[in-house]
Amino acid sequence: MPLAHPNPLIARLSPPPIPSVLAWAGDYDGAKGPLIDLSQAVPGYPAHPEMLRFLGEAAASPAMTSYGAIEGEEVLRKAYATHVSAVYGASVSAANIHITSGCNQAFMCSTIALAKAGETMALTNPFYFNHETTLSMLGIGRVLVDCDAAKGFLPSLVSAEEALLSGARGLAVVSPNNPTGAVYPPALLRELFQLCQKYGAWLILDETYRDFLPTDAGAPHDLLSIEGWEETLILLYSFSKSFCIPGHRLGAITAGPRIVGEITKIMDNMQICAPRAAQVAVAAALPILAEWRVANRLEISRRADALKAVMAATDGWSIAAVGAYFAFIRHPYGNTPSAEVAERLAKDAGVICIPGSYFGEGQENYLRLAFANADVGVISQLRGRLR
Amino acid sequence: MPLAHPNPLIARLSPPPIPSVLAWAGDYDGAKGPLIDLSQAVPGYPAHPEMLRFLGEAAASPAMTSYGAIEGEEVLRKAYATHVSAVYGASVSAANIHITSGCNQAFMCSTIALAKAGETMALTNPFYFNHETTLSMLGIGRVLVDCDAAKGFLPSLVSAEEALLSGARGLAVVSPNNPTGAVYPPALLRELFQLCQKYGAWLILDETYRDFLPTDAGAPHDLLSIEGWEETLILLYSFSKSFCIPGHRLGAITAGPRIVGEITKIMDNMQICAPRAAQVAVAAALPILAEWRVANRLEISRRADALKAVMAATDGWSIAAVGAYFAFIRHPYGNTPSAEVAERLAKDAGVICIPGSYFGEGQENYLRLAFANADVGVISQLRGRLR
Repeated sequence: MPLAHPNPLIARLSPPPIPSVLAWAGDYDGAKGPLIDLSQAVPGYPAHPEMLRFLGEAAASPAMTSYGAIEGEEVLRKAYATHVSAVYGASVSAANIHITSGCNQAFMCSTIALAKAGETMALTNPFYFNHETTLSMLGIGRVLVDCDAAKGFLPSLVSAEEALLSGARGLAVVSPNNPTGAVYPPALLRELFQLCQKYGAWLILDETYRDFLPTDAGAPHDLLSIEGWEETLILLYSFSKSFCIPGHRLGAITAGPRIVGEITKIMDNMQICAPRAAQVAVAAALPILAEWRVANRLEISRRADALKAVMAATDGWSIAAVGAYFAFIRHPYGNTPSAEVAERLAKDAGVICIPGSYFGEGQENYLRLAFANADVGVISQLRGRLR
Repeated sequence: MPLAHPNPLIARLSPPPIPSVLAWAGDYDGAKGPLIDLSQAVPGYPAHPEMLRFLGEAAASPAMTSYGAIEGEEVLRKAYATHVSAVYGASVSAANIHITSGCNQAFMCSTIALAKAGETMALTNPFYFNHETTLSMLGIGRVLVDCDAAKGFLPSLVSAEEALLSGARGLAVVSPNNPTGAVYPPALLRELFQLCQKYGAWLILDETYRDFLPTDAGAPHDLLSIEGWEETLILLYSFSKSFCIPGHRLGAITAGPRIVGEITKIMDNMQICAPRAAQVAVAAALPILAEWRVANRLEISRRADALKAVMAATDGWSIAAVGAYFAFIRHPYGNTPSAEVAERLAKDAGVICIPGSYFGEGQENYLRLAFANADVGVISQLRGRLR
């Protein structure tokens, strides 16, 4: 009898990176102190008690047990539209919002809405690895846009134009960036938007880490004020990081009503609707926890400063880029592959981070540190660990 | 400037069927009494108070806010493996279980694990519409397996073999069936399994409505006792219907560890993990609410009897198939398209059901009634509404 095989597009994918990185830490003997986990982005402070109360109340409610609207709970779509309008000084309505079960799902839905197997999408290099594997598993090709380390890992406009000229259906960028932390200036985002518009392509902008931008900055960009943005732009967001609730899986897409309608068809097949209780809870928390989120933003900014101090004082190590949540760190081990460096750091020094090579081509000299996971005291211990 | 277009595979999909069917009811004037919604499968009794308590406690817990294992919470994988082992008299372990956010997601993950764009999967005709649209949006072709109305809509083995001969990567069936309600006998399921094995194809068996089988029946099938089942069989299940919590989106895949591993890669991209709180809550409820679920099963069996009585007494209408949750009803309006009949029923008689044509080719004479949504009293009112 012939053997049944799985889809080769899936078989060739590596196992998910986070669990494999965490597995290295199992060999750490604790000699240098407790593990410091800077791998997966998980804020190192708990959710607000009010957030937990809202979550508990909503989940216990009989009203939340039935199916909800595919697009998301109206109360959350409205609350998030109001929030987005305030952040960008723009006019966005509930009809522009589609709620998803986390931001990976928001990206997957957006990708399926734009491109079919055999077509291509443009990603930056380095990229967020789940963006790359999502394309790969769907049989969608990828074309990479260069980011120059010497220019803080901002994407090259020339390279972006080449990617769009080659026929990419869309360009996906992340700002503040994962993995580098780089914050794309508004002017650069506008240029990327205009390039996409010029070639009839879509710009997917993943803003999962938007809430951790410095408070004194203005709006992250002015793209929502451009006439006709709905036919070029798709914004992605995650409630996981700002509200410290990744286990509840909640994200959002901001797009034109036409794309929201396409994503509704996809979500109906993918999971009918995002779980309802967390939606209602976050809708209640969104306006109430604004000050708490500002305080967290300041705390994470202090953590960035602590990391800069550690790196300045540690021979051979340097910060290649640092931003709202992540730092992309240059390690001192020359030709040693980044996965080997990360494995040794985990096993010998009890520091878990992600090898640069997981994020693209030519990233062997780097490690991604999710520094926002750890407080200033823990970050200062890194100096002893990295030596 | 060229206009950016969405993926044509999505653009050509119809809008999700349930909301469009519900929209018809907006024109009903209430003259014949309250709306009777037999469209989307939603048990017409509430979740158990203990279930709601577990959900509330888990959602309010700080421990549930962080990311969970991609494969699902160990406590639920173990509890569900124990349950499956008991139902089938088989030996299934946590390593065979992957938790998903609902059963549509379980199907989509399984499909991506098996087939890529340009390949084909076999579905029965009629099919569950989200199975068909999932294939369609992924660019996966479909080949249909005939189900003879005169034989209770059971799939034809000859037609199934033709589908597999034509190269389908897998055959997806639903038992108890959606839309027809037909319960596939264990011997038929074994023959379908053996056919798939013969051609190196996979059998996906969606058992969302398993808990509503008559209690006096034995195990639904013996496929889990076949040596090497892990290389042919994928079972899908939903906690939504049995626990009356569709809004919490929770499903499960039972498969060999190799397929579980492939699905882990897919889920990592699709949503990292199913929301955690509901998983822990259902793990607690699964053993405790066994008796309550048996009582519901008996109640739904009474509803089936009530529907049979109504149909026997209503001129021109007849039951083509009826089973654990759904009935496939033959309407008396000859050549009138089923969508027109369903629209008129909704607008004029306040009865919402799904047109047969939504489930496949040549189904114009039928309507799907999710009779389990309504209690015996409401079902008996159907007689007056259908005239």
